Amino acid sequence: MTENAKNKQNLKELVETKDFVEHLSIDCVIFGFHKDKLKVLLLKYHDLDLWCVPGGFIFNDENLNDAAARTLYERTHLSNVYLEQFYTFGDVRRTENNVHQKLLENKNIAVEENHWIHQRYISVGYFALVDYTLTYTFPDSFNEVCRWFDISELPELAFDHKEMIEKGLLHLRKNIDYQVMGSNLLPDKFTMKELQHLYEAILGEPLRRNNFQRKILSLNILERLEKHFTGSANKAPYLYRFLDNSEIKNLDFDK
Amino acid sequence: MTENAKNKQNLKELVETKDFVEHLSIDCVIFGFHKDKLKVLLLKYHDLDLWCVPGGFIFNDENLNDAAARTLYERTHLSNVYLEQFYTFGDVRRTENNVHQKLLENKNIAVEENHWIHQRYISVGYFALVDYTLTYTFPDSFNEVCRWFDISELPELAFDHKEMIEKGLLHLRKNIDYQVMGSNLLPDKFTMKELQHLYEAILGEPLRRNNFQRKILSLNILERLEKHFTGSANKAPYLYRFLDNSEIKNLDFDK
Repeated sequence: MTENAKNKQNLKELVETKDFVEHLSIDCVIFGFHKDKLKVLLLKYHDLDLWCVPGGFIFNDENLNDAAARTLYERTHLSNVYLEQFYTFGDVRRTENNVHQKLLENKNIAVEENHWIHQRYISVGYFALVDYTLTYTFPDSFNEVCRWFDISELPELAFDHKEMIEKGLLHLRKNIDYQVMGSNLLPDKFTMKELQHLYEAILGEPLRRNNFQRKILSLNILERLEKHFTGSANKAPYLYRFLDNSEIKNLDFDK
Repeated sequence: MTENAKNKQNLKELVETKDFVEHLSIDCVIFGFHKDKLKVLLLKYHDLDLWCVPGGFIFNDENLNDAAARTLYERTHLSNVYLEQFYTFGDVRRTENNVHQKLLENKNIAVEENHWIHQRYISVGYFALVDYTLTYTFPDSFNEVCRWFDISELPELAFDHKEMIEKGLLHLRKNIDYQVMGSNLLPDKFTMKELQHLYEAILGEPLRRNNFQRKILSLNILERLEKHFTGSANKAPYLYRFLDNSEIKNLDFDK
């Protein structure tokens, strides 16, 4: 079977599925960090110059959060990712100009006008910070390529996915200390400079070194380790690690 | 028409509604503060000793967030409340043992087995901090009384509403500084002691005065005003107010 015929078959099977919860979908905004840049993971639609965040539907007998993990795996082969809900997108107009219609037309697949794929969809937005390791592509019924994009250089996006990415980024910025601490975007031991670069990439602006260091240390989420010897001994920086949740004593007001 | 007949009529009209988005509902966890206690607003079901948070459905042509505001107003007559999404509840089993079935039986209203009211529902949870001013009751198709409860003394709750309240409370605790600052739970000017009592009610534990004061002042969200003279001049405490967003210069890392 040719690639094109296989895609058509996949898409046909998808639209013939009868046991999805109607009106409801899932979308995953997946951030990564590479060479001091914040990246987001996008999929390209077949035959169109249009991208989207990995998303999918929920089976009738499936828990919402399980569907999010499954859908992300099916689309990207990322597993064991800690997905966190950040917002549910429910404007009436968000699924107007439905790209699915175009995909079906392109493949000559006919569905009734009131088919679920053309309905209004409310989408639960999930969010993750992952290692920047995904390098392959996973063609499926909708999408042909999976790729990281710099958040300052996004391609054209379907539906309201640009707004989703912006809202996901705001969520990340607002919760930056918890999120960065819980992620594995840095090696186990890191320098203050590496941590500052990660914060700068997420916040999208340069930070003053002294201010950053003072604020981050006041959070009491870091332990200072031995110095990191690079050869030029007089410049050896300290290494740090994030404390485990069980080690954090000073986050609360009263401890 | 008797009260009972009116309720039956209301409930009949509701289940005859055809233009709700199926499978999707809204629930609002509304917190208030009164006499140093954190309260949550609950509704009692007709003829049952069972309570719930104010909730409802979304019309097909209605934005999700608009539906949340409408539904809260219809159930409680609270308007102009800033509602914030905090979590979407989507476990398959959450709408098993559907209380709606019992309500319909009690009123002798028959609906088909596959009626939308018996379906699986995924519910978008909204959250608000409001003035503790609501004192009336608003009987409607489902509920007969609207009342504040101390969060440590909750009655029996329908569906997964106990979990909703717990998750709403966690959200509030995690975002306590932003939430308290944006709310009007305190008068415009307040003492450090009043603010501490509010934090203690939300966090559910006593705080040490010195630690609290040091931490809260380090957030740079307060302005210290004139002293509050109570008569015994030697004990007059300072008054504080929250800075407006436009006045906050030191929340970010770099400013």
